[in-house]
Amino acid sequence: MTQAQTVAELADYLGGVVVGNGSVLISGLGPLETAGPEAVTFLANPKYASKVAETSAGAVLMAPGGERYGRTAIEVANPYLCFAKLLTLFYSVPYQPTGVLPASIVSDTATIGDGASIYPGACIGRNVVVGCRTTVHSGAVLYDNVIIGDDCTIHANAVVRERCRVGNRCIIQPGAVIGSDGFGYAPDGNGYYRIPQIGIVVLEDDVEIGANSCVDRAAIEVTKISRGTKLDNLVQIAHNCQIGEDCMIVSQAGVAGSSKIGNHVTLAGQVGVVGHITIGDNVLVGGQSGVTSSLPANAVYSGSPAIPHKEWLRYSMVMPRLPELKKTVKALEKRVAELEAKLSKNSQES
Amino acid sequence: MTQAQTVAELADYLGGVVVGNGSVLISGLGPLETAGPEAVTFLANPKYASKVAETSAGAVLMAPGGERYGRTAIEVANPYLCFAKLLTLFYSVPYQPTGVLPASIVSDTATIGDGASIYPGACIGRNVVVGCRTTVHSGAVLYDNVIIGDDCTIHANAVVRERCRVGNRCIIQPGAVIGSDGFGYAPDGNGYYRIPQIGIVVLEDDVEIGANSCVDRAAIEVTKISRGTKLDNLVQIAHNCQIGEDCMIVSQAGVAGSSKIGNHVTLAGQVGVVGHITIGDNVLVGGQSGVTSSLPANAVYSGSPAIPHKEWLRYSMVMPRLPELKKTVKALEKRVAELEAKLSKNSQES
Amino acid sequence: MTQAQTVAELADYLGGVVVGNGSVLISGLGPLETAGPEAVTFLANPKYASKVAETSAGAVLMAPGGERYGRTAIEVANPYLCFAKLLTLFYSVPYQPTGVLPASIVSDTATIGDGASIYPGACIGRNVVVGCRTTVHSGAVLYDNVIIGDDCTIHANAVVRERCRVGNRCIIQPGAVIGSDGFGYAPDGNGYYRIPQIGIVVLEDDVEIGANSCVDRAAIEVTKISRGTKLDNLVQIAHNCQIGEDCMIVSQAGVAGSSKIGNHVTLAGQVGVVGHITIGDNVLVGGQSGVTSSLPANAVYSGSPAIPHKEWLRYSMVMPRLPELKKTVKALEKRVAELEAKLSKNSQES
Repeated sequence: MTQAQTVAELADYLGGVVVGNGSVLISGLGPLETAGPEAVTFLANPKYASKVAETSAGAVLMAPGGERYGRTAIEVANPYLCFAKLLTLFYSVPYQPTGVLPASIVSDTATIGDGASIYPGACIGRNVVVGCRTTVHSGAVLYDNVIIGDDCTIHANAVVRERCRVGNRCIIQPGAVIGSDGFGYAPDGNGYYRIPQIGIVVLEDDVEIGANSCVDRAAIEVTKISRGTKLDNLVQIAHNCQIGEDCMIVSQAGVAGSSKIGNHVTLAGQVGVVGHITIGDNVLVGGQSGVTSSLPANAVYSGSPAIPHKEWLRYSMVMPRLPELKKTVKALEKRVAELEAKLSKNSQES
Repeated sequence: MTQAQTVAELADYLGGVVVGNGSVLISGLGPLETAGPEAVTFLANPKYASKVAETSAGAVLMAPGGERYGRTAIEVANPYLCFAKLLTLFYSVPYQPTGVLPASIVSDTATIGDGASIYPGACIGRNVVVGCRTTVHSGAVLYDNVIIGDDCTIHANAVVRERCRVGNRCIIQPGAVIGSDGFGYAPDGNGYYRIPQIGIVVLEDDVEIGANSCVDRAAIEVTKISRGTKLDNLVQIAHNCQIGEDCMIVSQAGVAGSSKIGNHVTLAGQVGVVGHITIGDNVLVGGQSGVTSSLPANAVYSGSPAIPHKEWLRYSMVMPRLPELKKTVKALEKRVAELEAKLSKNSQES
Repeated sequence: MTQAQTVAELADYLGGVVVGNGSVLISGLGPLETAGPEAVTFLANPKYASKVAETSAGAVLMAPGGERYGRTAIEVANPYLCFAKLLTLFYSVPYQPTGVLPASIVSDTATIGDGASIYPGACIGRNVVVGCRTTVHSGAVLYDNVIIGDDCTIHANAVVRERCRVGNRCIIQPGAVIGSDGFGYAPDGNGYYRIPQIGIVVLEDDVEIGANSCVDRAAIEVTKISRGTKLDNLVQIAHNCQIGEDCMIVSQAGVAGSSKIGNHVTLAGQVGVVGHITIGDNVLVGGQSGVTSSLPANAVYSGSPAIPHKEWLRYSMVMPRLPELKKTVKALEKRVAELEAKLSKNSQES
């Protein structure tokens, strides 16, 4: 943690406005429920507005004009973002040695940038390029001819296979695999003939890959994750996929081969996307949905197969009442049969 | 394997009762189908009761009073548990060297307990504490300031990131990741601002983590897996989750950020749980279910969205008959229209 | 890449027939959209037939008699398979050193076959056998008494635990775990008693395991993946499973304990299979399906619970129209009530 600052200084740093006591000293951060008098907290979701009354925090980041229940507030347009910025401000990165550290295994044909840290037990292959100020943790393996940009963090036991390229400011969490072989086999009458996967993976700048996630190399060309996109843990991106910019792909989601995903797309947890389709920009797909055909841009989808979210919501609310509906129909059948019998009798009588 | 024992000796060890020949020598264990005359087997599920007639096993662990088809039985209240105990008895742990073994990479500021085994290729960072009799296998990486308790096994290529804490008697299977960064980003108008994840993960005593499972560190405080809880393979626990005691979280299930799960909860395979909800004690959630809101304790739930299991069972049985139901309704519409026409004609006539 | 060959030479190699200019020199391969005049491409899916008109490729692999829009064609019965064969032909494996390389960690009781490559940072335990021409990449860990066949590739940070056996020509992608403990616990009244998992995993010849996939060791006997079966990334195979020959198990699918899967079975992405059931030969299970009971051979299944695909297709198309159906039924009820009132009035009047 860096040294304490006053509420007024923090408001100044964030471009916000103090309402209350600007001289309170702040030395940390915390959630509404547990933040103490020397911590700043935040209110982003109006659902929790009443918790401000009970917080012990020294100051609350909140939108202008909100009820502050007598607390000291720093009013800002985006409390959540400002909280994140204060976290960055207060959190001092722990001690980190630089250079090619003892017990690391680095090919003498590799190029290691200035200020990079290659940890003990990291393995760096032939002709690899590691950018400036990039950290490669213990047990991470970079195969031959990999290129990693500047200011990246490759965490422990992550693997980047041969010839794959990683941009600047990328973070690869532990155990993630970049460039594994695509799942491509040609049936040959008996079993399966393995199709060599000779393409690569390109991660553009500011891409982050979650723990134990997998991005397969292309069959011939490039599997691409574009600038700013973040993958959560245990995500699968199959060969030849083209993922757009600033996407959020949440844990355990999977995208099958050759699919194209636009910019600013969110795939919620455990979503599955079939191969060879296209998802438009700004699409949000709800959790556990199964995308089985291309989806137009700027919309929300849910269900398996995925359909517009509102339609899905409507029918998924009716579904549990299906047995009841079935009973009603059965009763109707009986009543109609009775009516028919009656009418037929009437007409015979008349 | 330890040396052979008689059926009578084993019954004595388990607190069971011999019915049949207590002098048979037993040297191993096996399933009903394949256990030989020197092996003990067990009958736990009444469904398989008739298989006792055909087993060649030297003895059968079974509940008191069961039909033993002339076999020698050891009657015990819990045959499955007793079988597990005999497995532990008969299975001798293979040779394991102790100490900080050659080719391991251990910081000289780390503290390694008595009787611990640090395997070749294991990487142990600054100020790490490894408890007594704990094994750290090859390729496992403990970042700086990690604390591991006594009698743990950290398998090959598992990773525990900085400052996380692991209790006593924990087992972490190969490739599991403890303390990866939580998936937290604040939209900043253009893309996403990365929120530093400065919290930790705490695994309490007797927790087990499956192969390639991931437990993310909290944003600010603690992601906690409580005493006795077991995670299967490829499970995802997101940041800030609080998982109770003695839970079973089956393979490929995922829990999103900040959710709280009670004690003795079972999430079956591929279950998804959204963030910021609470699941009560003793809940069982069926396979592939999607939990989208808090679930009261002591009940079984299924479906996506998850609802009480019985309701789900009822409607999921009707679902395949939907097309038929639709036809029936269409036919009814026709019949009602005919009735209406007839009646209208009748009233015109009368 | 190997040196260029003429279209005629390639046709000869494949047993195909040249239609057009057999003297064109080919030095690589590419997809229809991007292949240049020195590359060969292929048409396998009739859907893309019209793209042949626009390709710049020097030659097109296609089925006999297809419209070639003036391009040079190599007519073959199976264009996709032939394309794969040419990829293998043209793609020259990159430089690979052989032998036990410096900085690898190999027990002196291990046996390493002729022509094998043990990379720096690979860890090989006591009594391990590594076959001829097998490659073990950096960070891969083979526990004691593992046996690996000939011509295998064990990629970086993959783990094979004690006593497991891998056949010939197997490929294990990075981070995969073979032989982790099965998820077996016996409730003992309070919590869970851990059941020792003393069995092993056997991968037969030509098996491939995807990145970060997990195959658990059997409780007592063998978890088996039979000859020719391929697992994609992040797949879970639980303890005691018996998987047949030439199966394709796609990414993020999971099979629970003790289930038996026949030969030539395909489980699509994110499929879940419960434990203790049997799936027949030649079954295909659609993406995200949940298999909750045994499935007869030679059929396609979908849905959760999985049912014959055609039935699932029919009801899943009706599902989104459920709200409409409900309205119709409600309207019918009203109309029938009106009819009943009318008739009752009529009969009172008459």
